[in-house]
Amino acid sequence: MRPQQIIAKKRDGRALSAEDIDAFIDGVCDGTWGDYQISALLMAMFVKGLNDDEQNKLTHAMLHSGEILDFSEIQSPKADKHSTGGVGDKTSLIIAPLVASCGVAVPMISGRGLGHTGGTLDKLESIPRYNVNLSTDEFRSIIKKCGFAMTGQTADIAPADKKLYAMRDATATVPYIPLIVGSIMSKKLAEGLDALVLDVKTGSGAFMKTLDDSRRLAEALVKTGREFGVRTQAVVSDMSQPLGKFAGNSFEVYECVKILRGEADEEMDTTRELSIELSARMLLLSGTANDIAASRSMAAEKLADGSALEKFRQNIELQGGDPNVCDQPEMLLEKGLNECRVESLADGIVTEIDTFKIGSALVDLGGGRVRAEDKVDPSVGFCSHVRVGTAIRKGEPLGIAACRTADDAGRIRGRLQSAFVVSSDVPVVKPKLIQSVIGE
Amino acid sequence: MRPQQIIAKKRDGRALSAEDIDAFIDGVCDGTWGDYQISALLMAMFVKGLNDDEQNKLTHAMLHSGEILDFSEIQSPKADKHSTGGVGDKTSLIIAPLVASCGVAVPMISGRGLGHTGGTLDKLESIPRYNVNLSTDEFRSIIKKCGFAMTGQTADIAPADKKLYAMRDATATVPYIPLIVGSIMSKKLAEGLDALVLDVKTGSGAFMKTLDDSRRLAEALVKTGREFGVRTQAVVSDMSQPLGKFAGNSFEVYECVKILRGEADEEMDTTRELSIELSARMLLLSGTANDIAASRSMAAEKLADGSALEKFRQNIELQGGDPNVCDQPEMLLEKGLNECRVESLADGIVTEIDTFKIGSALVDLGGGRVRAEDKVDPSVGFCSHVRVGTAIRKGEPLGIAACRTADDAGRIRGRLQSAFVVSSDVPVVKPKLIQSVIGE
Repeated sequence: MRPQQIIAKKRDGRALSAEDIDAFIDGVCDGTWGDYQISALLMAMFVKGLNDDEQNKLTHAMLHSGEILDFSEIQSPKADKHSTGGVGDKTSLIIAPLVASCGVAVPMISGRGLGHTGGTLDKLESIPRYNVNLSTDEFRSIIKKCGFAMTGQTADIAPADKKLYAMRDATATVPYIPLIVGSIMSKKLAEGLDALVLDVKTGSGAFMKTLDDSRRLAEALVKTGREFGVRTQAVVSDMSQPLGKFAGNSFEVYECVKILRGEADEEMDTTRELSIELSARMLLLSGTANDIAASRSMAAEKLADGSALEKFRQNIELQGGDPNVCDQPEMLLEKGLNECRVESLADGIVTEIDTFKIGSALVDLGGGRVRAEDKVDPSVGFCSHVRVGTAIRKGEPLGIAACRTADDAGRIRGRLQSAFVVSSDVPVVKPKLIQSVIGE
Repeated sequence: MRPQQIIAKKRDGRALSAEDIDAFIDGVCDGTWGDYQISALLMAMFVKGLNDDEQNKLTHAMLHSGEILDFSEIQSPKADKHSTGGVGDKTSLIIAPLVASCGVAVPMISGRGLGHTGGTLDKLESIPRYNVNLSTDEFRSIIKKCGFAMTGQTADIAPADKKLYAMRDATATVPYIPLIVGSIMSKKLAEGLDALVLDVKTGSGAFMKTLDDSRRLAEALVKTGREFGVRTQAVVSDMSQPLGKFAGNSFEVYECVKILRGEADEEMDTTRELSIELSARMLLLSGTANDIAASRSMAAEKLADGSALEKFRQNIELQGGDPNVCDQPEMLLEKGLNECRVESLADGIVTEIDTFKIGSALVDLGGGRVRAEDKVDPSVGFCSHVRVGTAIRKGEPLGIAACRTADDAGRIRGRLQSAFVVSSDVPVVKPKLIQSVIGE
């Protein structure tokens, strides 16, 4: 079949066969499909839709476009977590050592931040000399030694996704569930997992802004995980405000170490709570605990007794980083930056936070990327002083941004201010952190 | 607006503004839109649709992407004809000199054959040394001298169309009326015409197989012509069988010269009849005659009295070709080719002809192109001995193909045979040549 025939089939709303989809993904990988043909089919898929069967076939073809890691020599169950991305979303750095300290291996392949959301690899690189470019052998060896490892995607894992993602980004075909599912699951299923927990964000800082859309995505991800024989659960979690206290790469690592050290302050509660919940679900799905209550207790205990901190220290040493960050987390925070104090312009209650705006302001400060090739400034960030429901007086701080220059601070203040709605006489419902759990 | 935003707008079914469409066409011409973005928007347009207003804006932007010829110094009215393409469709070579001989200037910019249909430029190049690559100045000067000229599209005329057509061909976005209209009309409106007649083919050898689709295309073309201030009419004509006697470049020029010389045999009647009808409509729209009957008489007379032949001879001389073809049309036909006699396998009536198959067989013999860069063999062709409704006996010829080699003849015979359905006891309706006239 020529590419045109396959494109025409979907253009006319007909279902694609396994042969059609395999020919497409083969053509993406070997370059026999032109970029213009790839994007035409992606647009036809977006507009005309893919059914469940086509979605599975697409994920299957994308997964098998590359290597599938084999950890069968590791006896313990293998589990991972994936988040759809948000602002201040830093739980991976707590979850990986925490779950590993409970005896479950975590082969975590992560990404970089793009647009208004952060990425685990950028955060890890705030740790001096930490290496996120492990070979498959190094990755396997570190998991064997300390129970978890964190690395970037190699060219061998789901290569079709890299090409397709670049095309989707350039052609307005990103926000379509079957394509999102194919992209996420082709990478996660390549990790050779027994269990997978998906953290699907919802709200102003998430890609899916409404609970309905987030639930639909969560359901599609869970269905696909099961279809491929991996025990899968999805948690729909709040992203109507930044998670925890800090957003910004070094600040987020600092927050995680504080939590691992048992020194979390109240503003870090949501990070701690969500990390425990997601870890508990990974333990439950891996068969390490009998029910969710026991799983939560186990995770809370390993966090409290310092086991998770020890695992993290061990991992940092194995991945070439400076383990002193575990003892002196303050060393992560660069001195002498410009503080941009964002004050409330009125008395009232914080009723709404435009989290996307905060994430975008952070990109503007250099803390995130517009293009995949952009460099990231690890030191800039934003510290939240309020959440939805906080009472505030005019002139009190909504938050403080750490900026590279005074100019940056001046430029960003108004935008950050406008991200917060402060009203009086309005009933406020504080958002629930865990909005929904799907699967199992 | 970034390309992604414009693509997303159409993806979501919203109407594009003039600014959106201009930005798209600018991006196509200056290379700032990637091929993958162009094709994604074309697919979104195809699937979600363009309304009349968007269609006009697209044609406008494509037209103004290049030069618009100015023939205001030529006093006589300017008219042209465009055909949507078929098999044996050779009327341009009769119409241009015939209409010019009636005092209407014809600045005809033509194309080459692609797929199963022929193209005027390929036919003209069967005339020894005939030059179809005129500069704009040469084109203008020849029209001034003999009333018409025929040339290929320069890079300055509607450059956006060239790029868009290549993309559409590769991404299954060709058969969508607003895109077809933009492609045809952006080129024809650049000729600076007063009147335009469109020959929209219908049937097995046309791009539009059904009368309904052909009428819809004809209506859209006429509406667009009027919108741009050009008197426009469309004739929906039969392409359920090849037009006239011959298909194949040299053979078709031969047929045209025989008609211009008044030596047409009965099998050439449809070519002659359609040429007069289309010419008459060009004369009527140009205000050269008062009604269609007078226009037809004028055209028939100028054909009969040799004026059109003289114009053609004059033009051939001016375009550097050998005018002897007007005196000895047989010189166009290469001797010594292999004849492939295609016989009927049964007694009966020809009830159906798959004209697409005949056109495709001709491409296979080398007489047409699969890709734009392919070379064409001018000498091969097919001579029809029957039409729909002809009674035939087993073993009598349905037609004869002139092939380069005996191998070609052997390879093609069965396919040509299967293009004809011969049945008994079936009522046959002979197709009407002119099925519908739209506009004015």
